[in-house]
Order: sequence, then C-alpha cells, then structure tokens
Amino acid sequence: MIRILLSILFVVTFATVAGAADSDPTPMTNKEAIDLVQTHANYLWTLVAAALVFFMQAGFAMVETGFTRAKNAVNILMKNLMDFSMGSLAFWAVGFGIMFGASSTGWFGTTGFFLNDFTPDGDPWVLAFWMFQVVFCATAATIVSGAMAERTKFSGYLIYSALVSAIVYPVFGSWAWGSLFNGSGWLEGLGFIDFAGSTVVHSVGGWAALAGAIVLGPRLGKYTKDGKIKPILGHNMPLAALGVFILWLGWFGFNPGSTTTADKSIAMIFVNTNLAAAAAATFAMFTSWIKFGKSEVGMSLNGALAGLVAITAGCANVTPTSAIIIGAVAGVLVVFSVMFFDRIRVDDPVGAVSVHGVCGAWGTLAAGIFNIGGTSTAIIGVQLLGIAACFIWVFPVALIMFKLIDKTIGLRVSPEEEMEGLDFSEHGGNAYPDFEVSGVAGMGSLDLGGPGSPSGVYGGAGKPVEQT
Amino acid sequence: MIRILLSILFVVTFATVAGAADSDPTPMTNKEAIDLVQTHANYLWTLVAAALVFFMQAGFAMVETGFTRAKNAVNILMKNLMDFSMGSLAFWAVGFGIMFGASSTGWFGTTGFFLNDFTPDGDPWVLAFWMFQVVFCATAATIVSGAMAERTKFSGYLIYSALVSAIVYPVFGSWAWGSLFNGSGWLEGLGFIDFAGSTVVHSVGGWAALAGAIVLGPRLGKYTKDGKIKPILGHNMPLAALGVFILWLGWFGFNPGSTTTADKSIAMIFVNTNLAAAAAATFAMFTSWIKFGKSEVGMSLNGALAGLVAITAGCANVTPTSAIIIGAVAGVLVVFSVMFFDRIRVDDPVGAVSVHGVCGAWGTLAAGIFNIGGTSTAIIGVQLLGIAACFIWVFPVALIMFKLIDKTIGLRVSPEEEMEGLDFSEHGGNAYPDFEVSGVAGMGSLDLGGPGSPSGVYGGAGKPVEQT
Amino acid sequence: MIRILLSILFVVTFATVAGAADSDPTPMTNKEAIDLVQTHANYLWTLVAAALVFFMQAGFAMVETGFTRAKNAVNILMKNLMDFSMGSLAFWAVGFGIMFGASSTGWFGTTGFFLNDFTPDGDPWVLAFWMFQVVFCATAATIVSGAMAERTKFSGYLIYSALVSAIVYPVFGSWAWGSLFNGSGWLEGLGFIDFAGSTVVHSVGGWAALAGAIVLGPRLGKYTKDGKIKPILGHNMPLAALGVFILWLGWFGFNPGSTTTADKSIAMIFVNTNLAAAAAATFAMFTSWIKFGKSEVGMSLNGALAGLVAITAGCANVTPTSAIIIGAVAGVLVVFSVMFFDRIRVDDPVGAVSVHGVCGAWGTLAAGIFNIGGTSTAIIGVQLLGIAACFIWVFPVALIMFKLIDKTIGLRVSPEEEMEGLDFSEHGGNAYPDFEVSGVAGMGSLDLGGPGSPSGVYGGAGKPVEQT
Repeated sequence: MIRILLSILFVVTFATVAGAADSDPTPMTNKEAIDLVQTHANYLWTLVAAALVFFMQAGFAMVETGFTRAKNAVNILMKNLMDFSMGSLAFWAVGFGIMFGASSTGWFGTTGFFLNDFTPDGDPWVLAFWMFQVVFCATAATIVSGAMAERTKFSGYLIYSALVSAIVYPVFGSWAWGSLFNGSGWLEGLGFIDFAGSTVVHSVGGWAALAGAIVLGPRLGKYTKDGKIKPILGHNMPLAALGVFILWLGWFGFNPGSTTTADKSIAMIFVNTNLAAAAAATFAMFTSWIKFGKSEVGMSLNGALAGLVAITAGCANVTPTSAIIIGAVAGVLVVFSVMFFDRIRVDDPVGAVSVHGVCGAWGTLAAGIFNIGGTSTAIIGVQLLGIAACFIWVFPVALIMFKLIDKTIGLRVSPEEEMEGLDFSEHGGNAYPDFEVSGVAGMGSLDLGGPGSPSGVYGGAGKPVEQT
Repeated sequence: MIRILLSILFVVTFATVAGAADSDPTPMTNKEAIDLVQTHANYLWTLVAAALVFFMQAGFAMVETGFTRAKNAVNILMKNLMDFSMGSLAFWAVGFGIMFGASSTGWFGTTGFFLNDFTPDGDPWVLAFWMFQVVFCATAATIVSGAMAERTKFSGYLIYSALVSAIVYPVFGSWAWGSLFNGSGWLEGLGFIDFAGSTVVHSVGGWAALAGAIVLGPRLGKYTKDGKIKPILGHNMPLAALGVFILWLGWFGFNPGSTTTADKSIAMIFVNTNLAAAAAATFAMFTSWIKFGKSEVGMSLNGALAGLVAITAGCANVTPTSAIIIGAVAGVLVVFSVMFFDRIRVDDPVGAVSVHGVCGAWGTLAAGIFNIGGTSTAIIGVQLLGIAACFIWVFPVALIMFKLIDKTIGLRVSPEEEMEGLDFSEHGGNAYPDFEVSGVAGMGSLDLGGPGSPSGVYGGAGKPVEQT
Repeated sequence: MIRILLSILFVVTFATVAGAADSDPTPMTNKEAIDLVQTHANYLWTLVAAALVFFMQAGFAMVETGFTRAKNAVNILMKNLMDFSMGSLAFWAVGFGIMFGASSTGWFGTTGFFLNDFTPDGDPWVLAFWMFQVVFCATAATIVSGAMAERTKFSGYLIYSALVSAIVYPVFGSWAWGSLFNGSGWLEGLGFIDFAGSTVVHSVGGWAALAGAIVLGPRLGKYTKDGKIKPILGHNMPLAALGVFILWLGWFGFNPGSTTTADKSIAMIFVNTNLAAAAAATFAMFTSWIKFGKSEVGMSLNGALAGLVAITAGCANVTPTSAIIIGAVAGVLVVFSVMFFDRIRVDDPVGAVSVHGVCGAWGTLAAGIFNIGGTSTAIIGVQLLGIAACFIWVFPVALIMFKLIDKTIGLRVSPEEEMEGLDFSEHGGNAYPDFEVSGVAGMGSLDLGGPGSPSGVYGGAGKPVEQT
C-alpha cells in the first residue's frame, strides 16, 4: 500500500515539475515541453540560415562589382543595396501575400499582405518564415542586376526590382512552394522537386536577367561592326573571389535552411551542397584550361556558383555521389553557356543567365534524374514542365516590363553617361577617388577577356587570345 | 492489483530512463533533462550571436576604411584591430565587473574582475554571457574610431580606447542593463526600454565620438578660411558597402541575440531589424536624391546603419509596421544630421555621431512611442531621461579624457604627418604599395563629397556640386 | 482506490503522449525524445560551425592576397579556391577513409572511402562529421599556399594540394583524432591533448609550408648577393585585415565546434579563443613597436592569427587567464620567428611557417603546461612527442613530394613569368585591369617591409628602415 501511495506521489510530483515552467492552469506535459524545445531549435536554425542567406547579398554585390569596371562600381553597389532594401518592403507589402497567402484561384495568394497575418500575441512562426523567404526573394531580384550591369538607368532599375519582388517571383513561387505556409500550388501538387529553388529562385532570376540583357542591348564597344567580340574586363578579382566565398557560405543557409527544421536531414544537404560546388569549380577550371589554354579565374569562380545553383533543387533528394556528378556537369555547362550567349550577342557582364538560368534548369532536371527514391518518365516530365513553366511565366513578363520601362522613364543611360561611367552620371560619385583609374575613356585599349571570364584569358570569340 | 504493480513498475522504469544519461546518485528528471537541452540551445544561440556581433568589427573596419583616404587605411585597420584586442583585455580585467558585478553603491559593480566569478567546475554561463557582452563593449569603442579618423595619434587613441572599454561604457551599461547578470541598475528600475542598446551601445559610442571630433578639430583643409566646406572623399566604396552588409548581418546577432535565449521571440526581432534597415536605406537614398539631385551611396549606406541603430532599442517591443516607421525616420534624420554637424564644423569623416549618437537617441525615444504594450507620458519620460543620462555621463567624461590625453601624450598628429598620411608616419606602412595613390599630397584637388557622403554628390554645403 | 486508478490512467496517458510523435509500433520514450532534440542541436552546431570554418577559406584567400603583390593576386585566389574544391573531392574519395576509417594496422584507416559508410536510410551523422572534417582538412592544405606564394607553378601546386588532402593530413590526423569517429590513433592513446588541431591542422600545414618554401627557394630579388634582405610589400592591407577578421570569426567554429556537441562546454572555448587572439594581437603590436620603432600592421595581424593557432590545442583544457598567457607568448614568438626565418633565408611571403608551424607547436606544448586538470612530466612528454611526430612525418614527406614534383612537371615558374606576374603567365588574367599597377617590373624600387610585415616598417634585417 505504501508503494502505491509512493507511486501516486511520484506521478503527481512529476506532473508538477513538468508544469513548473509557467503558472498556466493546464501545465505542459513533458511531450509538449520537448516539442517546444524542438520548435525553438527550428526557429533558431531557420533564422540563422536566413542570416546566412542575407549575407549572400554581400556576395552578389562583390561578385558583380569585381566582374565589372571601376567606373560603375558605385552603381552596382547601389543596385544591390536597393534590391534588398526596396525588395524587403515590397515583399512585406505584397509579395509574401501573393506567394504564401490563401488562394481562391490556385494561381496566387490573396491574403497576408503587410504581414497582417501576424498579431503580437499570435504565433510568431509567420515572422520566422517571412524572414527566411524575404532573403530568397531578394536573391532572385539581385541576380538580374549583374546581367544588366554598366548601362542601366538607376530609376528604371528600381522600378523593375520592386516589381520582381512584389509580383514576378512570388507568383511562380506560389505555384511551386505555396503550400509550405498556407496556400497551395499546382506545380507541387504534381510532385515538382525543387527543394531550395534552382528554378523557383535562380531560374526566375536568370530568365529575367536574360530579358533585361536583351532589351538593354550590349554595352558600347562590346561587339564591333566587323563581327568581333571585344572583351571588357572585370576590375577587381579579389572582390569577385571574396563574393564567391561569401555566396558559398550563404548557400549553407540557402539549401539546408530550406528544411526550416533543425533535424538530421540537414547533414546530407550540407555535404551535397559542398561537393557539388567543389566538383563544379574543379570541372569549370579544367574546362577553361582545355578550352582556352589557361585556367581562367572568372570561369572557375562562376563554376563554383553554377554547381551551387545546380544542386539547389535536388540537395535533399540525391546522394553525395550524385551531387558530385550534378556539380561536374554544371561546371562544364556554364563555360559553354557563357560562350554561347556571347556568340549570340547577349551581353551579360557577369554570366548571370548561364549560372542561374541555365544551370538552374539543369539542376532541376537533375533532381528528377538522380532522385534518391528513384526516377521515372513521369518525374522527369514534371521537372521539365516546371522548368518550362518558369521560362514561360518569367521571360515574357520581364520582357514586357522592361520594354514598358524603356518606353516610359527609360531603361538605358545615354552613350555619354555610359562612357563616363554610371558612378558619376547616376550617383555623382567615384568608387576610388584616390586611385588612377583607367578605362573611363580607354575602353578600347583592353583586348582580353569577356563576359564570365572577367579576368582575361577567354577572348570572347571562343578561343584564347594574346594579351597586347 | 496487477495493474497497480505495472503502474509502479512503469514509473520506476521511467525514472531509471530519465537518469540513464549519467551515473549520478540523483537521476535527472525528464523536466530537468528538457531544461538542460533548452539551456544548451540558449548557450548555442548566445554564442553564435556573439560570433555575428564580433564580425561587426570587420564591418566597422571596412566602412571606416572605405569612407576615408587611402593614405590612412592602415591606421584605421590598426585602430579597429586594437579596439577589439585591447578592449577584450580591458573588459576582461575591469569592464565586466563594473557593468555586471554586484554593486553596493547602485552606480557600478565592484565584483567579477578578471572573470574571477568563474571557476572551472562552476556554471559556465558567466563565460557565455561575458562573450556576448565583450563584443557589445567593443562595438561602442569602435564607433569612436570613425569620427576621429585621419588625424588621431595612435598612442593617444589606444589609451582612450582601453578607458572606454574599461570604464565609460560599463558604467552606463550598469545603469541600464546591470541586473541582466547579477547587479542592478537604476535606469532599468525605472522601466527604461533599450533592449539591445540604441543608447547603451550606440549613443555611448556616438557621444564619445562627438567629444573626440571636437577636441581634435577638423582635418586639414576640410573647412577653409573663406567659409567653404571642402569635401574629402572616401577612397574605396566597395569596401564601405561590404562593411555595411557585414554590419547588417552582425545586427542579426546584436538584436535577437540580446534575448540570450533561443525562443520564439527572436523571430519578430529579426524581422524588425531587417525592415527598419531596409526602410532606412530606402528613405535615406530618396532623401539624398531629393536633396542633392542624385542618389548618393554614402548617405544610402549610412541610412541602412541608421535604421539598424534606431531599431536596436525597440526591436523586441514594437510591431514590424512600427519598425518600418522607425527606420524610415532614421533614414531621413541621418541625412540632415550629417549636414548639420558639417555646418557647425564638427568634422566626422564617416558620420558616426549622426548614425550612432543621433539615431541611437531617436531609436530609444521611438521604443517608448511605439511600445507594443502601449505608451504613456511616464514611459516617454523615462526614455528621455535615459537618453539624457547617457549624454550627461558620456560626453563630459569623454571630453575631459580626450583633453587630458591631448595635454599629456598628445591626441593629434602633426600637420606634416597628417599630410603625409598616418599609415607611414604612425605605422611605417603603406596600404597599397602596388598602386598609384593620389591624395597623399593633393588633397586640395578633390572637390566633391563630404562627411557621410564619401562618394561625392553631397558637396558639404548642403547642395550638390559639380565634379571638376 | 480512485486515486490508484487515476494514477494508472495518468501514467498510461503519459506514455501515450510520449509516443504520439510517430506511429511506430514502439513509441519513443520521453528520454529518447529528449535525446533526439539534443542530437538535433548537435547536428545544428556541428554544421553551423563547419560553415564558419569553411568561411576561413575566404579569410586565408584575403590574407594571402593582401600580403602579396597585385600581379599575383589571381594566382593566389585560384590556389585557394582549388585547395578547397579539389581538396573536398580528395578528402571525399580518400582522405576521410584514411583518417577515420577502421584500421587494422593502427597507422591509418582503410575503410569509408567515397563516403561509402553512408547509406541513404542510415544514420547521417557520418555526413555531419565529414562536413566538419573536410573544412579542417582544407585549412591545412591552404596554409601551404601562402608560404609558396608568387613563384609556384599552378599545375605543380594542384598536385601537391590534392596529396595533402588525400594523404599527408589524414595520416597524421588518424594518429591524433582517429578514434573520434571509428578508428583509433596511437597518439591519442597516449593522452595527447590537441583539442582542435594546433598540431593536427596548423603544424601540419606549417611544416609542409616550410618544406615548400625551402624546395622553391626565395622569390627573385628577395635576398641580394651582398647579403641584404629586400622587402617585398603586400599590396592590399584592407583585404589582409578583412581576412584576419574573417579567420577570427571562423575560429569560433573551429575551436568550439570541435566539441561536435551543443553543450555548455563551448562557452569557455569561445572565451579562451577570443582572449588568446586579443592578447596575441596586442603583444605582437607592442613587440613590433619596441623592435622596429613603429606599430606594424602585418605583425599585428599575424599576431592575432598566432594567438588563434596557439589556443587551438588547449582551448577546452585551460582557463581564460591561461589563454591570455598562451596568446601573449604567441604574439611575441611570431615576431621573432618571422625574423628568424628571414635571417636564415627561408622566404615565406605571409609568415605561414611562423604562424601555423611554430605557434602551433607552442600551443600544443602550452596545452600540456596549462592543462586545467594539472600537468606533469608525462603530459609534457606526450605533448612533445606529438609535436615531434608531426614534424617527422610531415616535413620529410612534403620535402620529397615537392622535390618529385619539381623534377617531373616542375614546381617553379620561369624567372620571366615570375617577373611578369603569375596572373598573366599562369591564368592569362589581371586582377586589377582598371588600375595602374606598379611592381610588375619595378620590384627593386620597393625598399621597405619584409615577410610577415607586408606593410612596411620591418626592413627584413631586424631593424626599422626608412621609407625611400
């Protein structure tokens, strides 16, 4: 009998201890308390990952600045700063609601604008989730900046950037990821695999970048009348390399953070992300070496990014060995893609279309091919459908948007302003006033390098050229 | 009867399992085990956040270096490195005890010097907490460096820096945050709201910076005899922009890390921090555009920082919408403040007084105005009292300290050394020996830009000037 | 009787709640659920720490680029990118198996190549652990790059780098850390203390760097026939300083992450890491001031790194006060070590041998001397044995490897290529095409600075020299 009483006593004590954390009338059970700690870990991971993805803005800013000319550095930095700043406000006001709001149509959400789903005494998960999503949105917007560098009017760019964050990105996002929060998307309903956004983020950015580069036309002096491709060298390789390292770091938030859960699954995503990037950088380096006779830094750096973009879709769905294959293919692909776009005279100063558009599409296809649970014609079909849907939505919409901006407030600066550099004409500034900067007038004097090979060896015509 | 026995058995088993983790005579209950995991998460978050805040040192170093001239870059880097290095030692020896030690007077702590509260077999929380606090202390010290750039004697600066970390910052900190650990502060007793330190960290740094800039006087050539303001341009805008991105990242440790707890509350703090910065950068950019005719990069970058400083006090106490308003006001305020200090001839090369002092005060006031739990005259009154107390403590003490240093070992380098650049005169070095660096002698040849607008368009007289 | 029934009911409810998380036939106990959340926290911390350590690659790239000449910047960046990219593949294929695989010999592991220990439905801890280890491996490889800067043939370097990651580092690692995963090492069996790798990572890199610098010989013009030491200045001090801040940040993953467990012990490791670095930077700065008459930035930056390297072995085994002493000694030691290697004409452009080799050895010894649990002749003896074993394994093997590469494909570029700069000769590139870069031909015109004091004041002969 004493044992029975002790048993009762123990159980009561237990319940008391479990509920001691607060003075709620209904004390928390151990199960609830355990779940709460796990929930805290999920918040922690999602928000730390968001911080890492935020830092990718610095990475993009450094890569784009490094791969373009000194006279346009301030302009690049301003575009990157404003992509994120105005983009944050646009995604807060409109984009998040379109992407993750409840939808009656099935094509986009219509609730949750201005974060009005959140009340101070409500569940703050919507805020953690918003924070993680806003940095993704900004990534898509920022990708475009690189392809349009060195000739875009700042005011026109700002309007475009806000529209991408408010509408272009969120609409496609709602198709593929809408149900993550409280909507539902038709693409994911079909089983579309794009874990962290090879298509949703990178191809969206890449195809908009393609539209922008086409509407703008090439930079002055890039393609000569007699059919030659003039290389225009990036002005600061250490900054570009730093940017790539920062982006690689940020991707450790981008991909594994997309779990929004702190569990064991993040380990494989980390490893896949790293191996794909490593393989891609290595293969891009050797491809440039074989193709141009020297190992080229611009191609190697873009190779790393190509691998990161490509593994983004399948990072949670493929084995490490598959990740290496996906990365290796991306590393080769990006070199040929950069050369292709140069040959068809789409002037993309940093190779954004190839890295994000083309390798984003490859990665999305690869997520189906190498799917850890097995592949099938149906899976491949859905992946191809998603890739196509992205292009069909983004490219025409962006094309029309840029054309409209061009016809109204103007999208391109004047030739004089372009020659002088956008830093002075658009911002009254100078990125390096203490240094002698060439290139402001002497653009024609450089005879080496090209888009995506901003450091030199790739002559733009597909064969290595000699430095003069 | 069998059921009863089973029940007993189950309970006993349970207790055994709960205690299996160690061979302690008193096994851990589930409740204790759950609390321990949460405690581990708290350590993890506090220390990861500390690492992010530490990285702000790199951000400050890059912003300050970028916003000043090439000939003083080594000096800026040395000051930033030593702010943190000597500051860490000073805070270990003295500052932490003054700020968080037990206090008999109520004005500052008198125990815990040299981390002697910690014993290897004791609770290591004091170490986690110290780590988080030392990076805050270093932030306050580093802020001053920017306002005193390009003319301060290195030895004098080191003495000042150590004193801020050992005494100036900790004394005020003990008034506002002392009870966080084991003291108690009179300001927090009144209900002063400064969650992460708009006043405690940023205004302390800002007002000390103001004192320093006043005692030093302006840089040679900054203000001419005929009343003109000569702009002195920052030499490296990509570094400055990188620094701002790093600081923004670091603030995701600074503000939400101030919970020192991994719980759901960090989500709103992340979102508020981000939205305030985004709004401030946007509003500062447009303000500069309206005011000077061009969107200026120095003002836009400082705008982002102004928003981050302003939301620091209220980040846990206001809604996201309020955060946007707080940031937007800071973005406008910082532009006018920079112009104001220039007009009254306080030469602050990077705008530190405006960003940290003025916007820190605004943010502290705003935390009272937009307080999520409601505001009142009493709340506003306490906020104003805290703002005033900070100025009244820091500014005179710093002024006296700088004057004393000036009279003894000297605070300012000679005009020759200043012309030549501090890199050579103070450190025998050269930041960029492979480049042709102008400005070493030709300071008068620059005719664009000014404090806080280091890239050019703001001519220092409040109206845009033409580049010559 | 009712109470008894209630008690039973409660217990049953309890068990139900505890198992509610999944529909497993054997529901999880609370204990198991708690352990799982802790396991998730361990994954999270290990992987976030791995991301921080990854970022050290950017830090090394910036330090090495900043401390060398502009004409070799692209080459340095390529070496750093490829160290990590090819190193990741080599460690995946071979290194991890050698270091942590099961061993029949006791000298290295022979299982786990190509991550084949991992199956998609198995425990993913092997992946988390691999991710943390691969970034360590890359650190060891990257250290060598700095000492061999400005004269090494890229193809030769790549072969060496892959071999270090695949064999040299993993073999020693298996001796000291093998049992961490599933092997067993003879050194750790003796009680060798090297918590995070002062010897395992840094001395391995440092002694391989020494071998490389010796086989290569000094850079052209570094040591003249009449016995003078010509300083060769680093070209970008802000990049170098940024690199040091990034490394310091990364070390907050390197040292406390080596717990691979999220628990309270990480607090002391954070504090020790920070205090040692702070003390070392401070002492190196003052040492350079006393020795050369000016506070030198290269020595101060290398001082911080020396402190970080030195505390790495003992970070979990010494008190904060001991950490300060360990750091202070390292800060003094690194200055004299740099001067020593210069005097014996080992040309190490960034001071890698002194920072990583010498201070790694000091830190390993210090971990024995200041061991928190007490020291003894036996402990000191084992530490000395580990230090010696590292040198005896790494130095001769690296020497032979470099000699073999030298005799076959070649290790050093031609004097013409060296004069021209490796960026053009090896990569067809130019790091800064928009700037006027001196030094490509005018190496002899620089007359200040030296190895490890890349900014100037240390003239290489042990006394300060005047700038010409």
